[in-house]
Amino acid sequence: MSTSRIRKEVDEALLAFVDRQRPGLLAISDDLSPLMGALDALLRGGKRLRPAFCYWGWRAAGGGADAGIVGAAASLELLQASALIHDDVMDSSDTRRGQPSVHRRFEALHGAQGWPGDATAFGAGTAILLGDLCLAWSAEMFETCGLDGERRRRGRTVYDLMRTEVMCGQYLDMLEGTRGEATVATALRVVEYKSAKYTIERPLHLGAALAGARPDVSAALTAYGLPLGIAFQLRDDVLGVFGDPAETGKPAGDDLREGKRTVLVALTLERADAARAAALERRLGDPELDRPGVDELRSIIEETGGLAACEEMIERYLDEAERALRAAPITEEAREALAGLAVAATSRRT
Amino acid sequence: MSTSRIRKEVDEALLAFVDRQRPGLLAISDDLSPLMGALDALLRGGKRLRPAFCYWGWRAAGGGADAGIVGAAASLELLQASALIHDDVMDSSDTRRGQPSVHRRFEALHGAQGWPGDATAFGAGTAILLGDLCLAWSAEMFETCGLDGERRRRGRTVYDLMRTEVMCGQYLDMLEGTRGEATVATALRVVEYKSAKYTIERPLHLGAALAGARPDVSAALTAYGLPLGIAFQLRDDVLGVFGDPAETGKPAGDDLREGKRTVLVALTLERADAARAAALERRLGDPELDRPGVDELRSIIEETGGLAACEEMIERYLDEAERALRAAPITEEAREALAGLAVAATSRRT
Repeated sequence: MSTSRIRKEVDEALLAFVDRQRPGLLAISDDLSPLMGALDALLRGGKRLRPAFCYWGWRAAGGGADAGIVGAAASLELLQASALIHDDVMDSSDTRRGQPSVHRRFEALHGAQGWPGDATAFGAGTAILLGDLCLAWSAEMFETCGLDGERRRRGRTVYDLMRTEVMCGQYLDMLEGTRGEATVATALRVVEYKSAKYTIERPLHLGAALAGARPDVSAALTAYGLPLGIAFQLRDDVLGVFGDPAETGKPAGDDLREGKRTVLVALTLERADAARAAALERRLGDPELDRPGVDELRSIIEETGGLAACEEMIERYLDEAERALRAAPITEEAREALAGLAVAATSRRT
Repeated sequence: MSTSRIRKEVDEALLAFVDRQRPGLLAISDDLSPLMGALDALLRGGKRLRPAFCYWGWRAAGGGADAGIVGAAASLELLQASALIHDDVMDSSDTRRGQPSVHRRFEALHGAQGWPGDATAFGAGTAILLGDLCLAWSAEMFETCGLDGERRRRGRTVYDLMRTEVMCGQYLDMLEGTRGEATVATALRVVEYKSAKYTIERPLHLGAALAGARPDVSAALTAYGLPLGIAFQLRDDVLGVFGDPAETGKPAGDDLREGKRTVLVALTLERADAARAAALERRLGDPELDRPGVDELRSIIEETGGLAACEEMIERYLDEAERALRAAPITEEAREALAGLAVAATSRRT
């Protein structure tokens, strides 16, 4: 199957799962309808990268045509929805995938209804609960994907590890942000757990485990997936500062406003003179940072060579991934699809 | 096995599971150690009611001695830990089980370390992530409990339903609170989903499903568990207003400060004259409500007859549960244990 065909099947499986939940919720109360509406809107966006890597991990390990793998892969989108919804609360982000974030959506509902309570708390509380629901549903969707018990048992080991890793990675990310003292090395550790493993290596492993992969296949998927995952996150960091809002679905420079201690920021601080370092430190994390402020920080990141160093790292990790992919003991079809996904995951367009 | 013996085995299974996770987390980073510390502290408290009902649901349906059921039952404590941690963020609660709530604990860590970022956001963000981790781990603990795949498949149907119901119930609870217009009927709907099903009926069903219960056993467990669950929550509502902080682990009148639209409050408003109703509406949800303010609201709830009406409802639901228990097609041993749990769940002491 082609990558676009997989995407379509993943979308169908995801929407079918959510549609199966809908009547149960509405039977409890019509008041739950806005929760479903917010989830529907969120799931309309997204590149379905994690399901794609999961599917091709399965194929790489010799898995054949089976509707079960599509459901298992699609369940990763609900895990990702949970992470995004909770992330946006933690970062106080206003937008996600070009639309209001879930907590802002319910804050607005509260205002529109003229309810007497605290709109901000209602928005945040709803987002916490909807994120919880997506996390629970991701597990439910995985377990009911239709693959047999023995396959799921093998896959679950990866699934469990992946959830723990991403939650720990997100904590470390927040910790670096609040401490304000990330180095390139500590920022890379966050990238590894929060992003490289979660987005690419573990989805590949999950698919491979479900297919009953030999150890050499799993090892080859790590050799390809981990550096690719780092390159993916570094590209995301660059887009978070320099990306076009029409493409990223986020306001320009949002990562700067949120004060993210990315590898890009650490590379810049390593290279900056005292004045530029102080200027970056002063404005990073300023929620009021306006367009001229974003431009000033962009200039610092470019002039110091931070941006060039980050682009060079992306190239290096991408080369490493491509070399590993060429040597991997997998089918040509899987090799070709994974080469295409590597380009899609690290493209300058989102 | 006696109820106290079950409790001990559940505790051991729970701590053993958490201890198995510990090295994996610390291998990612020592910085994750405070997360484990906060979880250890939270899990030291709690009455293990849900595991007890799950275990006795299993026994009631003919399940025998099997270590697997203890693990499956104990996994409900991790689900509950997740709910408590997230609840406390949503309600801005300072304490839980007589200790600082998780978000307050990490807010304090932030202050003690003198980190430059926002302490409140760090506390809330950490609590969101630790609650997510507990939710993921509850599923992991359930799936690795050791019961066979067919038993887990039957149990999972209940587990999935229970998670969805409690999250929806919590949303409806928050909605009633922020709308400020709960009636006895709407407050009872919240009680049903957020509490009665989640705390008692579904844990019983889970144990019964794992044991392969006949439909008449499940129906009998509903006839006993649902009214008992309502009585349990109504008792909790009374304790939230009138309880002794040394027993509840919460400051006196905390539910009043949080503005919870409980059945007790709705019963009071139904009975209050205009002046008392206005006084209750005015102070309910005031985070600054001091001890004299709590005493004033307590007087209103007593003088209007709201408290007596609530106690009467508790008696009525408890009678209904006891009648159903006497008629249930279960072993005498299970009947006796469930009768004891009914007393424990609705006792005036927590």
